[in-house]
Amino acid sequence: MGIDNFINRLKSIVGEKHVLLNKEDLLTYMQDASYFEGNQPIAVVSPRTANEVSEILKLCNEYGVPVYTRGGGTSLTGASTPLDGIVLNMGRFDKIIEVNIRDRYTVAESGVRIDDLNLMLSQYNYIYPIDPGSSLAATIGGTIALNAGGIRGVRYGSTKEWILGLEVVLPNGEIVEFGERTLKRSIGYDLTALMVGSEGTLGVITKAILKITPLQVYASMILLYYDSAESVSDAIGLLNENGLIPIVAEFVNKKGAELSLKRVSEEYYEKNANWVLMILIEDPDKALKILSQTNPLMYKKVNDKNEIDKLFIARKRIRSVLIELEDTKNKVDVSGDIVVPPSQLGYILKELEDAMSKYGFKNYSMQGHIGDGNIHWDVFYDLNTQKDILKSFTMETAMMAVKHNGCISAEHGIGMEKKEALVEEFKYKNTLYNLELYRGIKKVFDPNGIMNRGKLFD
Amino acid sequence: MGIDNFINRLKSIVGEKHVLLNKEDLLTYMQDASYFEGNQPIAVVSPRTANEVSEILKLCNEYGVPVYTRGGGTSLTGASTPLDGIVLNMGRFDKIIEVNIRDRYTVAESGVRIDDLNLMLSQYNYIYPIDPGSSLAATIGGTIALNAGGIRGVRYGSTKEWILGLEVVLPNGEIVEFGERTLKRSIGYDLTALMVGSEGTLGVITKAILKITPLQVYASMILLYYDSAESVSDAIGLLNENGLIPIVAEFVNKKGAELSLKRVSEEYYEKNANWVLMILIEDPDKALKILSQTNPLMYKKVNDKNEIDKLFIARKRIRSVLIELEDTKNKVDVSGDIVVPPSQLGYILKELEDAMSKYGFKNYSMQGHIGDGNIHWDVFYDLNTQKDILKSFTMETAMMAVKHNGCISAEHGIGMEKKEALVEEFKYKNTLYNLELYRGIKKVFDPNGIMNRGKLFD
Repeated sequence: MGIDNFINRLKSIVGEKHVLLNKEDLLTYMQDASYFEGNQPIAVVSPRTANEVSEILKLCNEYGVPVYTRGGGTSLTGASTPLDGIVLNMGRFDKIIEVNIRDRYTVAESGVRIDDLNLMLSQYNYIYPIDPGSSLAATIGGTIALNAGGIRGVRYGSTKEWILGLEVVLPNGEIVEFGERTLKRSIGYDLTALMVGSEGTLGVITKAILKITPLQVYASMILLYYDSAESVSDAIGLLNENGLIPIVAEFVNKKGAELSLKRVSEEYYEKNANWVLMILIEDPDKALKILSQTNPLMYKKVNDKNEIDKLFIARKRIRSVLIELEDTKNKVDVSGDIVVPPSQLGYILKELEDAMSKYGFKNYSMQGHIGDGNIHWDVFYDLNTQKDILKSFTMETAMMAVKHNGCISAEHGIGMEKKEALVEEFKYKNTLYNLELYRGIKKVFDPNGIMNRGKLFD
Repeated sequence: MGIDNFINRLKSIVGEKHVLLNKEDLLTYMQDASYFEGNQPIAVVSPRTANEVSEILKLCNEYGVPVYTRGGGTSLTGASTPLDGIVLNMGRFDKIIEVNIRDRYTVAESGVRIDDLNLMLSQYNYIYPIDPGSSLAATIGGTIALNAGGIRGVRYGSTKEWILGLEVVLPNGEIVEFGERTLKRSIGYDLTALMVGSEGTLGVITKAILKITPLQVYASMILLYYDSAESVSDAIGLLNENGLIPIVAEFVNKKGAELSLKRVSEEYYEKNANWVLMILIEDPDKALKILSQTNPLMYKKVNDKNEIDKLFIARKRIRSVLIELEDTKNKVDVSGDIVVPPSQLGYILKELEDAMSKYGFKNYSMQGHIGDGNIHWDVFYDLNTQKDILKSFTMETAMMAVKHNGCISAEHGIGMEKKEALVEEFKYKNTLYNLELYRGIKKVFDPNGIMNRGKLFD
C-alpha cells in the first residue's frame, strides 16, 4: 500500500499545511450544497499554481487516485461531492490578474468568487453578467464547469457566451491554453467551449479570460401579478414579439411571493396572484403598455433603487427562508432546475403544480428566470422515508421539460442528480449516440478516468 | 476498381440527376472563393434529407472515399475546396422550418442562405445577427462550420454565440441531435459548440436551431476621419470605457475609402485621412462627444437611411471594386483576416502597412470590423511568380496578430491557408498540445478521416 508515499509526495508538491488529512477537516469537504452524501476523501489538497496542479494530477494518474475538483462547493446536483480519492480545493486560485475595460475582458484565476469579481468591475461600470443565486461563494471555475446562468440570463445568456479563453491542466499534467484575449476567433475545435459545462471531468481550470459588458442602467422595476400560468407565458412571448428583451425577468409563485415580496412590504403582495413577474427593462412604460394585453390582476412600478435591491435580495433568499420554516426541519431541500421555450411555460407550470400535489408536497416555492424559460423550485424531503419519491419526482419533472421541447437542466448541470435523466433525455430524442461521443471525448482528455469519477455520465 | 459500383450506389441514394459526373459540371465545384486550386472530384452529390446524407457517408466510409461538404462555396481559406473524393453539395437543404419569435429562435436547414433567412426574419423586426460580406451566398451550415462573424460582431459576437442546437450526420451514418430549442442548458459536453468552427471535419450539419434577436434601431451613422492608427485604437477603447458598445463599428483605410465612401459622394471623402471609422450606435451624439477627445481630422453624422445603406453597401463592395482595377487583373485576390484586442490596433495597423510596403504591395485595401479588433485586407498576387511571397506574407501577418495577444484567424477559419500558421500560433503560446486534442477529437467523430481531408490540421 503506497498511500503514505502518495501523501508524502502531495505534501512535497504543495507544502504540508496545504494537505488536509484530519477527519474533522475532511468532513467539511464531503458534501456540496446538494443533498448527496459524499465519501470521506483521502486528503484535501490546496495547490497555488498550475504547475502544482500539474504535479498533483500526474501523481494521481500514476497512483490511479480519483480527483474531485472543488470551487465554492455550491453545486446543487452533487457535481463537487467527492466519492473517493482526493479533493482538489481551488480556493487559493483567488487572484484577479487583469481588468481590461478598453478590450472588454478580464483575466482571473478560477477560485475567484463571482461577487468579488463583480465588485471589482463595478468600479468601471462593467459586469461579468453570470449571476447565480450562490454568487457570494460560487467561483469562476465552478460556474464554468457547470455553465451557470442566473438572473441576467434572459439578456446575457449563460457562461458559455462569456468565456474567451482558459488555462487548463489536463489529467496527464499538460498545462494547455485554449482561446485568447480576443472577442472572437476561428481556429478549429472550440476547446474553450468544450470545457464549459464539462463538470470537472476533463481537466482542471486554473485561469479564465472572461468577456465583460457595460452595466445596464434601468429606471424602475415592474411587478405583474397573474392568476394563470398562461398569462405568464403570454407576457414573455409578447415582450419578445415586440423586441423588448428584459435585462432581468424573474418569477415567483404564491408561496415564493409570500416569503419574499410580502416580507419587503404588504404593498407588493396580492393574495389572489398565483404568479408574480419581476422585470427590469430599459423602457418600463412601453413594456407595461404591451403587457396590459395580458390582463394582470395588478401591476406595480417600483422606482426607488433601494426598494428594487430589497426586492431582489428577497427573491434570492426565498430558498433560505423556506429552509427555516417549521415543517421543513429535518428534511433536505432539493432545488429543481429545468428549462423550456417560454411559449411552453403555461403548460409546464401547471404540470409542475399537479405533480407537486400528486406527490403531496405543500411547502414548496417555485421561482426562476422566466424570461429564458428557466424554472426552479425548492421541495423538502425526509431522506429516511422519501428517497424513492425524490428519485421519481426528479425524473418526472425532468422529462416534463423534455416533452415540451425543453431540457432536463438549465444551469445546475447533471452531477449525480440527473445522470439517469440525461440518458432518458437522449433516448426520448432518439439521439443516444450523444453518450458515445461524450465517452469518446472523455477518453481523449482523461484516458484513465480520474477526473470527477461518478458524475455526469457513465 | 469498384468506382462504377460506388457511383451507382450514390445514384440509388439521391437519384441519378443529383449526381453530377460530367467534367464541365465538376469544374464549378473545384474551387471556392479562395485562391486555392482544388482537384476534380469523382462526383458532386446533392442529397435532400439527413437520411440520404447518412447513406452517402456510410457508403464513403465503406469505400474510403473522402467527403468535401459544400455550402455556398464562399470560403476564403479553401475550407470547401475538394482535394479528392466527392463534393457533398448541401444546396437542396434550403428550407426555413420554423420561425418562433415568442421563443426567440428559428430552425433552418443548413443550405439556407444568410440573406434569405434575414429577409424572412425582417418581417418580424428580428435578425440572425451573423452577417459576413458574402451573406448573399453564404449558408447557415457554412457559416457554422467556419464560425463566421461579420459587421455586427462588435455587438453580437460570432456564430458560436447564436447556435442553440444542430442536427448532424456523423461519418458513420449516425444522425444525431445536439442541443435544443431552449435559450440555455447545462447537460455536459457542448457538442453544438464543438461543431462551430470545425470546418466540416467532424460531420455534416443538416439542420440548425438558431437564436435570433430584435433588430436594433439607430438614428444615424457617424463617420470619423483619422490620420493615425493610434487614434483608431483610442476611439474603440474610449467607447468601451464609456460603456458604449456600437451596433456596428467598421473601418476602411485610405484606399478603401477611395473605393467606397468617395464613390458614394465626395463629401464622405477626406484626402488626408488614412483611416475612417463607420459607426452605428444608439446614441451618436454622446459617442461623438466622447470621440472628440481623439481629435479626428473631420467627422460626419449621416441621418438619411438610404444614404447609410449606400455607404454600407459600398463598404461591402470594396473587394469587388478592387478586383476590377487594371493593375490587379490576372492576379488573385487574397483576403486577410486577423484579430487583436482593440488596444493593439495602433501597433498592428502600422506593422501591417510596413509589411505591405516591404513586400511591395500597392493596390491593397484594409477594412474590417474594428470594434472587435478584426482586420481584413485584400492584396493581389501573381501566382506564377509570387507564391512564396504569398506564403511568407500570410505567415508574417498571422504571427503579428499572435504577438499582440491576438489570433491568426477571426472569422475566415484555417482551411488550407493557415494550417502552418495554426501550428505556429500554438507553438508561440507554448500550447502545442492543443493539436493532440484536435486529433483525438477528430478520431472520435471521424475515425477513418474521410471528412474534409487536408484541411484545418494534419
